[in-house]
Amino acid sequence: MRKVRVGVAGYGTIGQRLADGVAMQGDMELMGIADFAPTLPLQALRERDMIGVNGVKYPLYLVSGADTAAFQAKDIPIAGGFEDLCRTVDVILDSSPGGVGAQNKKIYEALGVKAIFQGGEDNSVADVFFHGYANYEKGLGKDYLKLTSCNTTGLIRCVDCLDRSFGIEKVAITIIRRVADPGDYHRGLTNALELEKAPSHQALDLMTIMPHVNATGILVHTPVTHGHIITVLATGKDGKKITRADALAVFEAHPRIRVVSINNGFKGNASLFKYARDLGNRRGDMYEIALWEDSVVESGNDVMFAINIPQESVTIPETIDAVRAAMNMQPNGTEATAATNQYLRIGAFK
Amino acid sequence: MRKVRVGVAGYGTIGQRLADGVAMQGDMELMGIADFAPTLPLQALRERDMIGVNGVKYPLYLVSGADTAAFQAKDIPIAGGFEDLCRTVDVILDSSPGGVGAQNKKIYEALGVKAIFQGGEDNSVADVFFHGYANYEKGLGKDYLKLTSCNTTGLIRCVDCLDRSFGIEKVAITIIRRVADPGDYHRGLTNALELEKAPSHQALDLMTIMPHVNATGILVHTPVTHGHIITVLATGKDGKKITRADALAVFEAHPRIRVVSINNGFKGNASLFKYARDLGNRRGDMYEIALWEDSVVESGNDVMFAINIPQESVTIPETIDAVRAAMNMQPNGTEATAATNQYLRIGAFK
Amino acid sequence: MRKVRVGVAGYGTIGQRLADGVAMQGDMELMGIADFAPTLPLQALRERDMIGVNGVKYPLYLVSGADTAAFQAKDIPIAGGFEDLCRTVDVILDSSPGGVGAQNKKIYEALGVKAIFQGGEDNSVADVFFHGYANYEKGLGKDYLKLTSCNTTGLIRCVDCLDRSFGIEKVAITIIRRVADPGDYHRGLTNALELEKAPSHQALDLMTIMPHVNATGILVHTPVTHGHIITVLATGKDGKKITRADALAVFEAHPRIRVVSINNGFKGNASLFKYARDLGNRRGDMYEIALWEDSVVESGNDVMFAINIPQESVTIPETIDAVRAAMNMQPNGTEATAATNQYLRIGAFK
Amino acid sequence: MRKVRVGVAGYGTIGQRLADGVAMQGDMELMGIADFAPTLPLQALRERDMIGVNGVKYPLYLVSGADTAAFQAKDIPIAGGFEDLCRTVDVILDSSPGGVGAQNKKIYEALGVKAIFQGGEDNSVADVFFHGYANYEKGLGKDYLKLTSCNTTGLIRCVDCLDRSFGIEKVAITIIRRVADPGDYHRGLTNALELEKAPSHQALDLMTIMPHVNATGILVHTPVTHGHIITVLATGKDGKKITRADALAVFEAHPRIRVVSINNGFKGNASLFKYARDLGNRRGDMYEIALWEDSVVESGNDVMFAINIPQESVTIPETIDAVRAAMNMQPNGTEATAATNQYLRIGAFK
Repeated sequence: MRKVRVGVAGYGTIGQRLADGVAMQGDMELMGIADFAPTLPLQALRERDMIGVNGVKYPLYLVSGADTAAFQAKDIPIAGGFEDLCRTVDVILDSSPGGVGAQNKKIYEALGVKAIFQGGEDNSVADVFFHGYANYEKGLGKDYLKLTSCNTTGLIRCVDCLDRSFGIEKVAITIIRRVADPGDYHRGLTNALELEKAPSHQALDLMTIMPHVNATGILVHTPVTHGHIITVLATGKDGKKITRADALAVFEAHPRIRVVSINNGFKGNASLFKYARDLGNRRGDMYEIALWEDSVVESGNDVMFAINIPQESVTIPETIDAVRAAMNMQPNGTEATAATNQYLRIGAFK
Repeated sequence: MRKVRVGVAGYGTIGQRLADGVAMQGDMELMGIADFAPTLPLQALRERDMIGVNGVKYPLYLVSGADTAAFQAKDIPIAGGFEDLCRTVDVILDSSPGGVGAQNKKIYEALGVKAIFQGGEDNSVADVFFHGYANYEKGLGKDYLKLTSCNTTGLIRCVDCLDRSFGIEKVAITIIRRVADPGDYHRGLTNALELEKAPSHQALDLMTIMPHVNATGILVHTPVTHGHIITVLATGKDGKKITRADALAVFEAHPRIRVVSINNGFKGNASLFKYARDLGNRRGDMYEIALWEDSVVESGNDVMFAINIPQESVTIPETIDAVRAAMNMQPNGTEATAATNQYLRIGAFK
Repeated sequence: MRKVRVGVAGYGTIGQRLADGVAMQGDMELMGIADFAPTLPLQALRERDMIGVNGVKYPLYLVSGADTAAFQAKDIPIAGGFEDLCRTVDVILDSSPGGVGAQNKKIYEALGVKAIFQGGEDNSVADVFFHGYANYEKGLGKDYLKLTSCNTTGLIRCVDCLDRSFGIEKVAITIIRRVADPGDYHRGLTNALELEKAPSHQALDLMTIMPHVNATGILVHTPVTHGHIITVLATGKDGKKITRADALAVFEAHPRIRVVSINNGFKGNASLFKYARDLGNRRGDMYEIALWEDSVVESGNDVMFAINIPQESVTIPETIDAVRAAMNMQPNGTEATAATNQYLRIGAFK
Repeated sequence: MRKVRVGVAGYGTIGQRLADGVAMQGDMELMGIADFAPTLPLQALRERDMIGVNGVKYPLYLVSGADTAAFQAKDIPIAGGFEDLCRTVDVILDSSPGGVGAQNKKIYEALGVKAIFQGGEDNSVADVFFHGYANYEKGLGKDYLKLTSCNTTGLIRCVDCLDRSFGIEKVAITIIRRVADPGDYHRGLTNALELEKAPSHQALDLMTIMPHVNATGILVHTPVTHGHIITVLATGKDGKKITRADALAVFEAHPRIRVVSINNGFKGNASLFKYARDLGNRRGDMYEIALWEDSVVESGNDVMFAINIPQESVTIPETIDAVRAAMNMQPNGTEATAATNQYLRIGAFK
């Protein structure tokens, strides 16, 4: 069977990692990437002779309006225009800046190519708002899917697995959000916490994917760059008790949840970033969310815990899952996520 | 009636503010302060000719073992030894470093002086673990009281007032803790969030003061200096619904809770610090906690909200309340807190 | 002699402090302030019944286009329009956002009122680019003066006094710049140092004020809020040696330079902010720059040292000096700065 | 010729990178690593089946007093004791915590193994204080060498190459130091700059290596984790002019200096860390220092510029050079550094 052909639009923080993720899939082929300006990621790719993970070549296509001369001045080779790329692929992973994806969709429609959008686009851009574990089947054969944002993706992993085991009726979350990525100079916060109006969109998004759950929450931005931390208070269906031990057993069984402890040296979000570098992971990334076993406590019948969201890389596996759904590569989420996990070597730590 | 005579042991971050708070009370007299080394606060007091708030003189007494020569080298006048101070007062506000208060207690016992300890001491140092609003009456006439810590003090203000109006059965909190005070060089965190083992001691302390409430929570340190933010999920007695509007009405009626909004420019903890400076408040301090109206949301029958704790000054009013209790100055919390509030001009913004 | 009448346009970080500074001058009268929107400083002023430092009333005038209803909604009293204020004053201290001063100048010209602009305006707005110590006489009787920015103001204090004592030929500076003020949410940097293209404008500005000095430098933004630190390497005229001891003696004699040491607890910019709060200074401000005696070293014949710039308040004294020059209140800088210093209680620590 | 056999003592931030660096050398063989406790780096190595860079196995030896049971509890395989490792190698790269290296030296002496120490040790531990470019020949055949610290290593790269081209008489530096590494929780600074007593040890260390240069400087700690920035003012021999263009040409020719520009997106230290991740470099590391062409300015006859020091990885190449010197692998620094550079792929960006 021929491999599914994939392109990536937007080679920024997410796009780089999507390209790497596709290049690691045995049943997919990365046909190229597209971008607009010779940013640092593209200068770096040029310094590596346009070769990415596993020796795979990442040919560069320019979107309409790109300044070709600027690329030439930096000696970055150009393989063609964005529509050229679109014509060679089955599906585009669109990680353009928020709002650009909606404009690109006209090209996808005109050329008959499927597309998977990131969380920055409006939900209306897609046929289905997608999460690999929570609603894979809804994405089967669809043309346009939109992924949940980084916080929502990680949050749903743990709420969904509790829900499948015990039934979940309600969650209340506090998001302690990292305000910028390492290397960001266009946004930042200095010695300040910043509150967003409640409820946070992540709680609302969770309800879109899991409509039987009542979710609300408060988000506070913090001046750090390595990983959001979310505290979750989960209430079982009809108030049924969920014990600490029961919850931990479910979390430990999930391939995309890494249960860690403060005692072992995982003191916070920065420890997890360090650990991913210690592992030698490309870019110091981690696909799993972390869940601190020392944070899991009971609140009456409810259970409360804290998770860490590696914001740059956490959505990569679920986006790969989305390719599988859109292209009918696997009939159900269990098989699809297993394939993604195997190629990305997720869960190998278990 | 003669004024109650008060001394302050430890002229650090808290001690400075306690001295100021006492100097502002019309029915108390600041007899002096005690310390060990010529720290910045004492060098500053010297530069101001040992005169504090409202033109009140703050005579300095040295604790045992202090390096007298070091004070003399900086030309800081010394009024006597710590025991001299103790002999002139009715009550000592002990804001020594954690653990030193317990040692000082032997002096208090020997000299028959009452003492009020801060949150850093072990509960066993005191006859009662005290909060001006939640359990004033328990402190009446007692010799040794211990205040709740800054987070717990602010947290109890809002939980106690909800409890008095609606009955509270359970709270789950997330503490987004500032890791150091402005000017601290002996502790700090750089580009990292740090988790503490759950449950947080603040939740446990709340249960000590309010034993009919089930409390738990998770604490995360963040690299900022201006104010902790706590999110609180409060469950009414027997699960009875508490509406957003009902909760807000109660908060707005509390003199030590300042209801603010993001729309008016209160974007986070740093806005509140800035506002206190804009007000011209001494040291840029604020005695009230802030509560964001834009944060108050309902979670099923429960109510969730976010508060800001100005860690350097929030415990001052409740410590003054404790003097009133220990000295039987007012027979109940309503009258005592009203007196404290009036002298500290708390609630004038209402 | 009647007092000089002063208004302040723009009641932001600088404007608040200018109003306070004027209100402290025995020979000036604060006629009012002007602004555009009901910001936090104005909400705070309203909470204090429009009374600022020393019990002085700060009447508020609205600039053209201000949303009157927004002020009324917050119950902030309005004394009139900006032109009303201009008609009652001799001089306006214009601390509007950068560029707005140039527009306001048309009003000043039409109404025949003098004005003193802050560093954010273009030099062309003024007749003279002014510093109270370095070129007071150039401002005498002038209609439009522009102050140096915060870094340049502090830098010139120390270079000018070295120059007057020893002759200075060349300086090379490194500015370690605080990137935002406490409470700023509209700008910030998170876990990053940011370089600006060299040479820094502060070096160029120094040469405009002191044209006989060759100055250059590099500026790096850092994610902190309390005070810039500048290292200065100063070369004597014709390479003549300046000893560490000679330089220190000159610095210690300057009323607006506070010589501090790490040994005494002044570990960095945050210690100085803390100390200003410990002093009970309004808003925790300091008018003096600090100079670390532990930083002064010789580099061959040159001398190198580090200073701290309290960015929010450092330009206030020199701006008051500018009023004195523009209004011919004192004939020379020595008398003028002495008057300013006395009213602001600068140098009292000596 | 048989490969030189190398062991690494201390598998922390530096030790991990030394092990990787050795594993990349075609003429060296990594025999193993030694440590004391099952830290995160060792847990990560275990998760990767004890395999490091290029598929090389990193056998673990335990130093005396290590808690064997703790390693077994984490299922980390142990190859033997530290002395076993020492017996199999020609040279140990000792990156133990400061001071431990001096104790380990007794073992090295007893077993007749050479050792190369990191900057944390006292100079007296070694026969020569070493830098691959500045004094390679002094290390030839020596038994005990000590590397310069990270800042000094990078600083000497650029001062040494200026010196070889133009002659350098004097340098004055300002070190804007990152205060902690990513993932550090045992040290940190929050919203503060911290000054160290001048002159900085890096200036003194430079003079030890380059005794004909007069060096001094000031160091300021800043609350960031990605790279120190140093500004350097360099004075030519006898005050001879060094032009901006001349200096840049020399920097651009140096394999371990990467000349970058703000215009191309290199805004500060965080851009460089991001770029190293974009390159796919293991751990997001970079061996080169960066030098901003937009920072290079002339100050009279002197030249001033800013460099970035990637503190975690910058000393790796010079430490490998030290192995070459100690083992007489190459007769001079030119050949030795070229070999190191080739194996580490340094300078490939030129």
